[in-house]
Amino acid sequence: MTVPVDDPFTSPFLKALVRQMRAEDTHGSWDAKSDAEILKAYLLTREQRREIPILGDPDPDVLWRLELFYRAVGLAIEQETGTIASPMMKMSHEGWGRIILTAGRLVVLSKHLRDVHRFGFETLGKMAGQGDRLVQEGVAAIARFPDVVKA
Amino acid sequence: MTVPVDDPFTSPFLKALVRQMRAEDTHGSWDAKSDAEILKAYLLTREQRREIPILGDPDPDVLWRLELFYRAVGLAIEQETGTIASPMMKMSHEGWGRIILTAGRLVVLSKHLRDVHRFGFETLGKMAGQGDRLVQEGVAAIARFPDVVKA
Repeated sequence: MTVPVDDPFTSPFLKALVRQMRAEDTHGSWDAKSDAEILKAYLLTREQRREIPILGDPDPDVLWRLELFYRAVGLAIEQETGTIASPMMKMSHEGWGRIILTAGRLVVLSKHLRDVHRFGFETLGKMAGQGDRLVQEGVAAIARFPDVVKA
Repeated sequence: MTVPVDDPFTSPFLKALVRQMRAEDTHGSWDAKSDAEILKAYLLTREQRREIPILGDPDPDVLWRLELFYRAVGLAIEQETGTIASPMMKMSHEGWGRIILTAGRLVVLSKHLRDVHRFGFETLGKMAGQGDRLVQEGVAAIARFPDVVKA
């Protein structure tokens, strides 16, 4: 189980995500916005989630948020280990698919995704907790197989 | 360098490719055709290649042939090692991208692809030679890191 983070802004994952989001904001339209404000796009209350149909096609915005989420996981892994973990995402139009992060010959992280059109978190603390857990999973894999990373 | 195969139909890769192609032929429209005939879709003479523009969007047929090609590599790897190597392909609309085959936590094979709209081979011998080489590359990776495959 993922433990929510008390102060999400201490999370290395969340910091990496904010950097990724701001890096994509080439027109500076978020310059005046706080980190918490731009991260709101990832929040989904229980009520909002209930209003989204069970089946649905993910729109480009949610795919973009999903890809940034995993890119941030890779970036936070790199900060902790010095090893770049590159994401590769393959999604069907129906909202299921797979994302992997690789480094050298190692699959650092592999996740099957579904219901992507409802991707979101109740709180920033929960999101930070899940991101940090994925980062730790990747860091542990790299520590376990250092020669595969270099292969 | 890839060495062409004298009799392409002795190639484990080519046999796997034919099986993959026939498995997708759910209407039996190829039942009366020989293996050499259905593999013709992969052939591209020098002259034909010259007629294809340098830049171009790959059509769905060429993406399908490309995916089957690497699925056959995975299948031939499995036959030799007993380890299933699953492909994951991510292509841009412009015809470049990446394909990887993974088994457990191991990246069995990783290829960057480009000019995919011109994907094809001069002879079946050359195609079999390239396929077999990729199979051997994957087999060697699995032999080198057996514990990563099981992780």
